[in-house]
Amino acid sequence: MNKPLKIAIAGLGTVGGGVVKGLQTHAKPLNDRAERRLEIEAVCERDETKKRSFDVKTWLNDIHAVAKSDADVVVELIGGEGGPALSLVEEALKAGKHVVTANKAMMARHGARLAALAEEKNLALKFEAAVAGGIPIVKALRENLTVSGVVAVRGILNGTCNYILTQMESTGRPFDDVLKDAQALGYAEADPTLDVGGGDTSHKLALLAGLAFGVAPDLDTMPVQGIAHIMPDDIAFAREFGFRIKLLGIAKKTPQGIDQRVQPAMVRAGTPLGDVDGVFNAVAVDTGAAGPFFFEGRGAGEAPTANAVIADIVDIARGNIGPAFGIPARLLIPLTPAPSGSASSAFYLRFQVLDVPGVLAEIAGHLAEWRVSIESMIQRGRAPGEAVSIVMITHETTHAAVARALETIAASDKVIAPPCMIPMEAR
Amino acid sequence: MNKPLKIAIAGLGTVGGGVVKGLQTHAKPLNDRAERRLEIEAVCERDETKKRSFDVKTWLNDIHAVAKSDADVVVELIGGEGGPALSLVEEALKAGKHVVTANKAMMARHGARLAALAEEKNLALKFEAAVAGGIPIVKALRENLTVSGVVAVRGILNGTCNYILTQMESTGRPFDDVLKDAQALGYAEADPTLDVGGGDTSHKLALLAGLAFGVAPDLDTMPVQGIAHIMPDDIAFAREFGFRIKLLGIAKKTPQGIDQRVQPAMVRAGTPLGDVDGVFNAVAVDTGAAGPFFFEGRGAGEAPTANAVIADIVDIARGNIGPAFGIPARLLIPLTPAPSGSASSAFYLRFQVLDVPGVLAEIAGHLAEWRVSIESMIQRGRAPGEAVSIVMITHETTHAAVARALETIAASDKVIAPPCMIPMEAR
Repeated sequence: MNKPLKIAIAGLGTVGGGVVKGLQTHAKPLNDRAERRLEIEAVCERDETKKRSFDVKTWLNDIHAVAKSDADVVVELIGGEGGPALSLVEEALKAGKHVVTANKAMMARHGARLAALAEEKNLALKFEAAVAGGIPIVKALRENLTVSGVVAVRGILNGTCNYILTQMESTGRPFDDVLKDAQALGYAEADPTLDVGGGDTSHKLALLAGLAFGVAPDLDTMPVQGIAHIMPDDIAFAREFGFRIKLLGIAKKTPQGIDQRVQPAMVRAGTPLGDVDGVFNAVAVDTGAAGPFFFEGRGAGEAPTANAVIADIVDIARGNIGPAFGIPARLLIPLTPAPSGSASSAFYLRFQVLDVPGVLAEIAGHLAEWRVSIESMIQRGRAPGEAVSIVMITHETTHAAVARALETIAASDKVIAPPCMIPMEAR
Repeated sequence: MNKPLKIAIAGLGTVGGGVVKGLQTHAKPLNDRAERRLEIEAVCERDETKKRSFDVKTWLNDIHAVAKSDADVVVELIGGEGGPALSLVEEALKAGKHVVTANKAMMARHGARLAALAEEKNLALKFEAAVAGGIPIVKALRENLTVSGVVAVRGILNGTCNYILTQMESTGRPFDDVLKDAQALGYAEADPTLDVGGGDTSHKLALLAGLAFGVAPDLDTMPVQGIAHIMPDDIAFAREFGFRIKLLGIAKKTPQGIDQRVQPAMVRAGTPLGDVDGVFNAVAVDTGAAGPFFFEGRGAGEAPTANAVIADIVDIARGNIGPAFGIPARLLIPLTPAPSGSASSAFYLRFQVLDVPGVLAEIAGHLAEWRVSIESMIQRGRAPGEAVSIVMITHETTHAAVARALETIAASDKVIAPPCMIPMEAR
């Protein structure tokens, strides 16, 4: 048997606790898979009340001590884009230790630089747990699906948003109410901004785009929209048209660059992505010649995420030390974004208007000015002089054209709320 | 840059041709991923008319020459359970060459022994392309989903069968007619036995079970049933109950052993497996604590299968040489099958009977003798003295109980064709 692999774990929250538990509970089969013993050398956690729950060799209170420990692998589960997490990873790599992290924010922001640092020293930097929890999509893109190139990646990457949208659909209740329930059930954070605002999805998408297209992850050029503006009406109308609303991370190769964005989208019901319910995550990868692939599973929670971390540790134990993003970090190119607004699709549009003569003519006129043509239209009910919703599905057009038309329409005194536009993502 | 990896490819059919084409077309990005040049050292193909289509260094007509070549990796794409494919793999491993194969029959029958042979010499034996084409399910089970154990694996593993069942559903036409069309379109072989009889699925299932449960792949104890007996009526009735009929490979851990079988099953419409259409393959893995995972993609065809082979080659080029089934071959245990007929579920039953008084009472009586209770029943139409179908859904019971009841029922002179039983697989 080879010599043991010594592991230091920083951060004993849900995932860190799950990693300790998993390594201890499944020691025998994991050691068999690794063909060496996986030993927890040290854990680092400032909250000393947690000491009682974990039976580990060395308890450290200081990330610098982790980087200086005898560990072969440092597992970073502190979280946060910079701060102690980033310091630890940098120090650990400089000290010649492999790194496993679940930190999407840090990897999305600093991944390319950290990958270069790791590769200089022939060290692993693995982050399977950072995207879609237990779904092995990082490895699948890094080592399998990219063989002949990837055309597009679309993902439901935030379980909180998908839970909220699913609940809004099944109960007909508004976003704020459903969010409160989700918070009470522990499916949403006290401060839900990172989830419902799309930020968490943007971190994961940046990593998927990096893996899929061989680019340095890039948050700066990525348009990000959350789900707080989605109304129960939108979801009900979507259903009438045979669609469901999902918060998607989308990254597509186009002749002008990579079209990368986080956005609620209409996804056809009955398709794999369209039927993903509740807290589940899913990723659809279009590989062109080799066809579409689809992956679904739990995107968060103790066991799925801890398992992803442990799988990375076993890979390292086996000597499977590849470049973090599949190609050497020096070959990662800067992402060239597709021109803003160039993304083309059909769109769902909803207008809150006063039910007065001429309002439809005015809206249709402004859309026509920007050559946005209408495939179908619904106005539900009549309420002369009061507010009603007009909903339209457009033929294929560009995001920019619709956005400009909507700007003019929003300025009308007959339109009483900002119009809502949601792209239709066919597959 | 490290020294080049020399590759010999035996068999230039659809997949072999795709591998040569893929390695040549994507040479630059593949070399970047491998961090070394991937060089086709030799190809072996007896059909010399293919020479013109391939621009390769050395053309060999003899598998023994392949095993003796300068190649670091031998890619076996000849096919067949034994014969030249098996000889080549054995000779190549003995000669110190890594092996990549798409040969499910050979791996299902001889996989554990070949894995041991490879590991003795610290060589890779990889077979991603043998199961579900381009879906990286072999790697996902080998390296990710097995971290905390697998409870069950269910797969749609044969595109021909899934295409036929999908066509039978959409057209209402019988099996034989749809098979003929599938043959004309190239979706089914001239001799379709291996596909429609379930043999191909059994090979793939044996490999998935080996990976999921750490057992030596075992075909001998696996019940295998094909789809030729499925009638359009069964599919129509299934739809009425909210189900679809899929040929599944199923492997479940039970307290008595592994319940491993190939069988048409009722899968609920609207679930991931239930909605897999046409030639697509899919695998659902239940990991218990870490939840269910689902993978879907093209299970056959040039690009998906060739990509899987190439991904294995790149793994080897990177030095990712793990045991073929995830744990060392010496630790693979013989599969203990769950007792025959112990699998428990609800069942769909169809009886072709003469429409005479007392027939239903007779059937119900025999079912009751074996404690099989009926949840719902449909008898469509009346045709006194002639043949009609009676369809029932049972409550949960065992395969053995239903089989025994059906044996007695089949002996009745009012029952004019062998009864049909199909288990309901809930998720």
